[in-house]
Amino acid sequence: MQNTDLDILISGGTLLTMSGQMNIIENCLIGIKDGIIVSIQIKNGQTFSDESAREIIDASGCVVMPGLINTHTHLPMVAFRGKADDLPLMDWLHNHIFPLEARFVNRRMVYECAMLAMAEMILSGTTTFCDAYFFESSVAEAAQVCAMRAVAAQGFADFATPDNPKYEKMMTAAERFVNHWKPYAPMITPAFFCHSPYTCSPVTLVNVKQVAREAGILYLTHLLEQREEIEIIENRYGKKPVRYLYDLGVLDEKTVAVHCNWLTKEDIDILADTGVGVSHNPESSMKLAAGVAPVPELLERKINVGLGTDGAASNNDLDMFREMDSTAKIHKVMSLNPTVMSAQTVLRAATIGGAKILGLEKLIGSIEVGKRADIILIDMNQPHLTPVYNYYSHLVYAARGADVKISIIDGKIIMKERKLLTIDLPKTIEAVNQIARQIANQ
Amino acid sequence: MQNTDLDILISGGTLLTMSGQMNIIENCLIGIKDGIIVSIQIKNGQTFSDESAREIIDASGCVVMPGLINTHTHLPMVAFRGKADDLPLMDWLHNHIFPLEARFVNRRMVYECAMLAMAEMILSGTTTFCDAYFFESSVAEAAQVCAMRAVAAQGFADFATPDNPKYEKMMTAAERFVNHWKPYAPMITPAFFCHSPYTCSPVTLVNVKQVAREAGILYLTHLLEQREEIEIIENRYGKKPVRYLYDLGVLDEKTVAVHCNWLTKEDIDILADTGVGVSHNPESSMKLAAGVAPVPELLERKINVGLGTDGAASNNDLDMFREMDSTAKIHKVMSLNPTVMSAQTVLRAATIGGAKILGLEKLIGSIEVGKRADIILIDMNQPHLTPVYNYYSHLVYAARGADVKISIIDGKIIMKERKLLTIDLPKTIEAVNQIARQIANQ
Repeated sequence: MQNTDLDILISGGTLLTMSGQMNIIENCLIGIKDGIIVSIQIKNGQTFSDESAREIIDASGCVVMPGLINTHTHLPMVAFRGKADDLPLMDWLHNHIFPLEARFVNRRMVYECAMLAMAEMILSGTTTFCDAYFFESSVAEAAQVCAMRAVAAQGFADFATPDNPKYEKMMTAAERFVNHWKPYAPMITPAFFCHSPYTCSPVTLVNVKQVAREAGILYLTHLLEQREEIEIIENRYGKKPVRYLYDLGVLDEKTVAVHCNWLTKEDIDILADTGVGVSHNPESSMKLAAGVAPVPELLERKINVGLGTDGAASNNDLDMFREMDSTAKIHKVMSLNPTVMSAQTVLRAATIGGAKILGLEKLIGSIEVGKRADIILIDMNQPHLTPVYNYYSHLVYAARGADVKISIIDGKIIMKERKLLTIDLPKTIEAVNQIARQIANQ
Repeated sequence: MQNTDLDILISGGTLLTMSGQMNIIENCLIGIKDGIIVSIQIKNGQTFSDESAREIIDASGCVVMPGLINTHTHLPMVAFRGKADDLPLMDWLHNHIFPLEARFVNRRMVYECAMLAMAEMILSGTTTFCDAYFFESSVAEAAQVCAMRAVAAQGFADFATPDNPKYEKMMTAAERFVNHWKPYAPMITPAFFCHSPYTCSPVTLVNVKQVAREAGILYLTHLLEQREEIEIIENRYGKKPVRYLYDLGVLDEKTVAVHCNWLTKEDIDILADTGVGVSHNPESSMKLAAGVAPVPELLERKINVGLGTDGAASNNDLDMFREMDSTAKIHKVMSLNPTVMSAQTVLRAATIGGAKILGLEKLIGSIEVGKRADIILIDMNQPHLTPVYNYYSHLVYAARGADVKISIIDGKIIMKERKLLTIDLPKTIEAVNQIARQIANQ
């Protein structure tokens, strides 16, 4: 191997590829050039001089794995972290969150808060996120500055939103949004997000899907987060929510349904038949007492499932390691079956599973030659990760965001030894604290 | 205030006292002398020279709070962390854990593994633990070296245990254990632990309680961890487990029942009437799919509840911050009621609640003048803890063990800026890795 042309060489450590064969390579060598993984080998006592790659990362004592993919967030909601806890979902949403958003969400707030959220995500091993909010262009701009990979979904709801006081102008603005961001793929991928079947009219749901389809982009919606949604939709449209969306024709391989806590067997059939992906956000749904998605059944039906943290107002963090731990545990106890949702299954959902539902599985989600280099290193030399019998077990049940030592996105090192290289953290914290003081004093 | 006599002065930061009034003091001054909290004041622009206390800790930007109390652990089981996951409890216990213990548990293994576990606990904010295992004297010795506060419970079961191949000698050894450790209170408090109603005969349960009562020490037992226990005990003794223990006369204020996942209403009445404390270990019971204790009901009945992680073989970490997060969330989603188990309620269980069930509430569990100085500082200046509206919320839902900056136990600083001051960590990790290699190669 000629390494002189490499940008980065990761040397040593245990590689969890998360590929189809789930190969694990002890003492690996990974070559990165122009943002792409160009070689994966076993290190056989070779030594490389400093010239062999522009940067050599010593990964000994580390697990090397694909960056985590957070498939559902509302990043700017870090501004409301801990502002309204321990409340029922509808009370929380209508009496706290929506009024706060109407008053405090603006372009600058979205940018600064998204930046803080990205700092938190990078420091806990996430390299790609799918965000859904208002002023989504500001989220995408922050992602560009941080050099994070993003699916940025412009939000729709049938009421005046902070970014579109005149509802009629929403669609025009959204088309502008898509046209602006499409050239930035695969770092920034534009998408659309209809808030839910109960806050969007059938016309909105159908029109937004139509434009998404024409543009070839992802379409996301909250679905069956809480049980009351069934009654609301049945009362309005005479059918259950999944059947309703199916009849509207908005369910297909480029649709992601978020939450899915209250699916019937027929609903699961429809999701399986249409190829819809599911974003599973267990911690948020636990905290809001919204319910638990039947993920073991979804996986049995070969439905693609990714994990997400949801916004920090309902979690209250954006740490995918905690989300993995909760995912494994909640399904075991709900089913009283400890064999469901093995650590390996959960780790797949947090990496390649997430990539699949976002339509990015050819680019990211596993460490394979030809894929983009989104890679994290976990420092295993720590008391809570000692001893090691099973890497998957440790990553899901014992590791935490703070164990991530180095983060590489698209072949660029953006965090090293816990230091953020693309974000001015003190400045970002102060900017968000300033916004929070206004919120606290309202 | 004359500070020249103080050993430590904690200056600045936000003090969460966790006292009966749950006072919060912004910009606090806490004086510590001879292991005791001797003064708590508001800092009014006073400045102190270096001479005012032997050591001044700048706590600005930190939360200052009581150290966390882990009320149920089997510390040496860190040796089996990740060795057997995703298995049913009885399979896990009888086909994996018990055989591993029979083969690999010895005095040295217990000491080295307990030391590693203490490193993990100190680094995640625990200052007091209640451990139950074999060779418990070795756990107590490790606690003395680490300078951690411990309730060390010698284990009993009606089969040959690793430390007592001849069952008949168990009680004699246990009495020696108590007599040896009693003088070391309140740093080391000896106790007895009967493994469970299904592994201990009625004679063992009664005799051990009798000796515990005479010695004035705590008596612990696993109780109703999994549902099958009801049938086992009913088949053997013709009554449900709690009623069975009540009729044996082993339930009182100095008994701690661990798990309690399958309590009936009558069981709860009995626990309330007898004053038994409950150790709640949600993450272990979730991972083993064992069940969820009815903690909101227990608290309503004024039963004292503390939190525990259980051993690292069934969790798989000893991080009380994660345990708090899971405690709040699991009860909300199980009851579909987001208002149960508020952050404040959970934090009380992890501090003063734990102190109460261990009989240590006059010494620890809150920050009040006259109590022992078991204090942790949490670094709040981090993206995942920004902004702050509600300290309790952040500590339960967003903070993690790695945010603990300084740990003080009995007035001694044992961890500072993430560096352990009483444990040689590389040596301890290597010692446990050596033991693990034997386990892996068996």
